Amino acid sequence: MKTFNICLEEFNELVSKKLFDQQEPRSLYEPIDYILSLGGKRIRPASLMAVCDFYSGSRQNAINAALAIEIFHNFTLLHDDIMDNASLRRGQKTVHEAFNTNTAILSGDVMFVKSIEYFTHYSADFLVPILKVFNQTAIEVCEGQSLDMDFEVRDDVNITEYIQMITFKTSVLLAACLQIGGIIGSASEEDQFHLYEFGKNLGIAFQIQDDILDTFGEQVDVGKRAGGDILQNKKTYLYLKAMELADPKLKNELLAWFNEVAPTEKEEEKINSVKKIFNTLVVQEWANQLKEAYRDLAISHIEPLKLKDHQKEELRSFADYLIARNF
Amino acid sequence: MKTFNICLEEFNELVSKKLFDQQEPRSLYEPIDYILSLGGKRIRPASLMAVCDFYSGSRQNAINAALAIEIFHNFTLLHDDIMDNASLRRGQKTVHEAFNTNTAILSGDVMFVKSIEYFTHYSADFLVPILKVFNQTAIEVCEGQSLDMDFEVRDDVNITEYIQMITFKTSVLLAACLQIGGIIGSASEEDQFHLYEFGKNLGIAFQIQDDILDTFGEQVDVGKRAGGDILQNKKTYLYLKAMELADPKLKNELLAWFNEVAPTEKEEEKINSVKKIFNTLVVQEWANQLKEAYRDLAISHIEPLKLKDHQKEELRSFADYLIARNF
Repeated sequence: MKTFNICLEEFNELVSKKLFDQQEPRSLYEPIDYILSLGGKRIRPASLMAVCDFYSGSRQNAINAALAIEIFHNFTLLHDDIMDNASLRRGQKTVHEAFNTNTAILSGDVMFVKSIEYFTHYSADFLVPILKVFNQTAIEVCEGQSLDMDFEVRDDVNITEYIQMITFKTSVLLAACLQIGGIIGSASEEDQFHLYEFGKNLGIAFQIQDDILDTFGEQVDVGKRAGGDILQNKKTYLYLKAMELADPKLKNELLAWFNEVAPTEKEEEKINSVKKIFNTLVVQEWANQLKEAYRDLAISHIEPLKLKDHQKEELRSFADYLIARNF
Repeated sequence: MKTFNICLEEFNELVSKKLFDQQEPRSLYEPIDYILSLGGKRIRPASLMAVCDFYSGSRQNAINAALAIEIFHNFTLLHDDIMDNASLRRGQKTVHEAFNTNTAILSGDVMFVKSIEYFTHYSADFLVPILKVFNQTAIEVCEGQSLDMDFEVRDDVNITEYIQMITFKTSVLLAACLQIGGIIGSASEEDQFHLYEFGKNLGIAFQIQDDILDTFGEQVDVGKRAGGDILQNKKTYLYLKAMELADPKLKNELLAWFNEVAPTEKEEEKINSVKKIFNTLVVQEWANQLKEAYRDLAISHIEPLKLKDHQKEELRSFADYLIARNF
């Protein structure tokens, strides 16, 4: 994790200086520095820079792409928060709460343009393949969010569809980061393929872990409530697997809980009752197994890479770090 | 206008086939075909194609860029309608009314990605300069919309700031269309500069004309109400010039009307009273003169172009068509 940690530190240092401090109108640009100042894990830009470093020995070349990706990611968070009507992000007010919804829509829009602008700092040899990957990814991220919203009002979602949704909504962006890091580092197309697949499968494992932690985590992120998915009636893997395994009686019980929003005084009861059903059906175990299957699939794409052993070792540690995390 | 009209017809024919009919998820893509089906003047894509034709003898090469621009333009309309809380566009329900706000935000987002994707069909020699122009323009369009929202709550906007705002919000996109048509047609950089300036100044004249028509037009667009700007307390050129020219008494009268939203039964009275003040101060005449100054400035950039006389004549007719329009 040495390279990754150095990249992470450099990237955080860069973003800690307000990037849009000098730009006018302030009402458009201030919210961008605000959301970037809320922090986040910065796994995406750091991994992009680390992969570029592995192939070319230089992290510097990757900085514009890392900024592009982080700004794009935060644009999606900003618009998602409006759509989810979320009031908190990382324990702080969301942009539409701290400013207003119109500002949040428009600052989000300009963030997307800025992300494309950061990419245009690369020469055509790099820009063309980067944009190909990035556009496809950006489209899939929108499709993933759209599927997620569709699923809220559907009661026939199956696990295959769910995996498709989280692949688009979450994991293709990590995949794109690793591939773009490879492109800028001049990795071969074969290596780019394996980097993408490593990131994609790792991203899926990461999201399943996220589902598990949201319900069963001992410690949760500041600003995130334990059992939040249950209270929001989210059709996570845990819920879908439970519905698959449940007998008619348990199924009806689950459906009853997930068909309505619990009033404040019933929230604890709802979380505990649903967790009890999940425990009866050992869905956490099923989720762990699926997560490990995707992690193993991800790791299988490390060996074919034309990298040194210690670099491959770093990618394995990166996978462990992402999946084992309880942050 | 022959080339322009052929291009317009070809473009309309293309868009009349639903472009996103086959794409999933439907809830994401259906609103895109919906907003495109509402029509519009398609001045931007048609002028882009016509300029490309002038330089290269081919319209076909320009189609992807024309689609990119039209989709981008409709994305901005879609998000603007949410921000303005507008219920009608071209006489039909706006996207957030016909579908819902979350869908409108997300379909808008993916439209922006799609516009970039259409540009990536060009080879690097064209793509790099196109993206440079397009990114800068897209940023300015967002900045223009941001300024427009800022102006709503400011009472010290001056005419210079207003011209800056409409330049960004409206006219740079027309300018970009003409320049991008030039890029794809392999026009020289000098010609690209003049094309851009022609479009920019024509766009400003167009917007001033729009302000005049909104208040004084005999016929107005279907779906747009005469006097709409007055009812919305919009600080158009007419209002700002009136405030500049008015004596203290008239100024207070205007301020009183523009400081609150008229109840339905007072709307006609408000429109008539404000128009009377405007007439007293002959602001329509001032607006016409400013519009003509920008039109003349636009036209001055036609002569230096390395084009045939009949092509220059078409650009002049295009300017007349845009400015004289009462549609």
